[in-house]
Amino acid sequence: MVVTVIGVGLIGGSMALGLKEMGMASQVIGVGRNTSSQAKALALHIVDVVLPLDEAVKKADIIYIAIPVDATIDVVLQVMDLIHDDQIVIDAGSTKFALCTAVKDHPRRKQFVASHPMWGTEFSGPEAAVKGAFAGRACVICEKEKSSESALNIVENLYKKLNMHIIYMNAHNHDVHAAYISHISHITSFALANTVLEKEKEEDAIFEMAGGGFESTVRLAKSNAAMWAPIFMQNKENVLDVLNEHISQLRKFKASLEKENMDYLIELIEKANQIKRILK
Amino acid sequence: MVVTVIGVGLIGGSMALGLKEMGMASQVIGVGRNTSSQAKALALHIVDVVLPLDEAVKKADIIYIAIPVDATIDVVLQVMDLIHDDQIVIDAGSTKFALCTAVKDHPRRKQFVASHPMWGTEFSGPEAAVKGAFAGRACVICEKEKSSESALNIVENLYKKLNMHIIYMNAHNHDVHAAYISHISHITSFALANTVLEKEKEEDAIFEMAGGGFESTVRLAKSNAAMWAPIFMQNKENVLDVLNEHISQLRKFKASLEKENMDYLIELIEKANQIKRILK
Repeated sequence: MVVTVIGVGLIGGSMALGLKEMGMASQVIGVGRNTSSQAKALALHIVDVVLPLDEAVKKADIIYIAIPVDATIDVVLQVMDLIHDDQIVIDAGSTKFALCTAVKDHPRRKQFVASHPMWGTEFSGPEAAVKGAFAGRACVICEKEKSSESALNIVENLYKKLNMHIIYMNAHNHDVHAAYISHISHITSFALANTVLEKEKEEDAIFEMAGGGFESTVRLAKSNAAMWAPIFMQNKENVLDVLNEHISQLRKFKASLEKENMDYLIELIEKANQIKRILK
Repeated sequence: MVVTVIGVGLIGGSMALGLKEMGMASQVIGVGRNTSSQAKALALHIVDVVLPLDEAVKKADIIYIAIPVDATIDVVLQVMDLIHDDQIVIDAGSTKFALCTAVKDHPRRKQFVASHPMWGTEFSGPEAAVKGAFAGRACVICEKEKSSESALNIVENLYKKLNMHIIYMNAHNHDVHAAYISHISHITSFALANTVLEKEKEEDAIFEMAGGGFESTVRLAKSNAAMWAPIFMQNKENVLDVLNEHISQLRKFKASLEKENMDYLIELIEKANQIKRILK
């Protein structure tokens, strides 16, 4: 199979490496945002060749789209206008409702599979792409009933070969859950970084003292604005819902400290400990 | 050297394992909160013998105290009343100001070293103790001028043999920095867990979808209330300071979304990205 990857960054690049490693792609054609990312993707052997979008789409069996979500809708529609009967289009975006709504009446909707492989790091660009990235992680496929059986089979097979387990849900539910397990973690991390940068003047002390807790909570704050700002904006309502609840939970900790109410503080922490139920 | 470890949990237990592994302790005597933790510490070969506090202190060259910070002050004072001229007392607590204030006029103050090895995990109890725990991490020593040169040398040597780098600061500054790099991360994580538990009814979906971001941000929410509630309470003023700033930073994200102000959202994220300066 010839696979065209549109967006050769963290996700698209890792996908290209995985598909080649698993022998699923005989050739990977890259479409990059600019000459610099294209050159990097070639140099790092993430893609075999770089072509303009039209040409890259024409030559592919599968077109895999992994670009910021504010650009995804237009590019998916543009690609779906270009494909013929045997081609399949997949996206990897972190939001699904707006996209699924935008493509729902496209004559080639059946050849599109809306997916979200649940993997990422705080890094971006072709240099952030890694082999074996997706193994053991979940991949959400949305509105599977709107894709043809053959397209769905090919995409499921592709993700399974990368050792992902597939979950099916509608696009709205995906966006609600993603707000909880991914989007809010990133906002918290960004806000925590800004808290430290705003108030703590002795950065050297922090740098020297920082232990595992700080590193793991603030790590996500290195994440790329071009990727994340559109995600938060496109999933605004769910993210605001979760963010409001999160602020109100923080206020409970604040109240327990202000009132020196040790019992309440312990109750809040012990309730939080129940997250063990959900985390492995 | 005979080392008595009071509190054979995550920190005390790991310290005991480290001191034995490095050949610094010929014998480790354990003092545990209850018979269950004592039995575990013995079974896991964390301590060689378990004794009541008075007896354990009498036989030791070094007494290492690693218990919740609300119990630390009383126990440190009690131990310092028991020791003779050649013994050294060390504590490992996450707050330093209240303790350093409480011991400052004790006749044996010079034999006490206030320290905070910056390592931990979300687990607790003897079964959470691990070998090699502290390697590569920072250890803060507070008010070093109040310890005798010989006590300080022995303690510095002990931490250096565990491959820690030592930072010196006064107790007030320690508590301010600790609020930023450790205490707020834990509160955020607890609050995030409570947000999810409060609002998200489909826990199975979260469990299945949860990727690396969620796991790393919420991991700390498994942490023990008996350890953390007293830390927050004892460092209340600094923690409230940071918590207020954190809530106000979250509100900025909220405002940017409510107003659909993409430029402002990107600005907030790009500011947070500067945390790269501080993190390795």
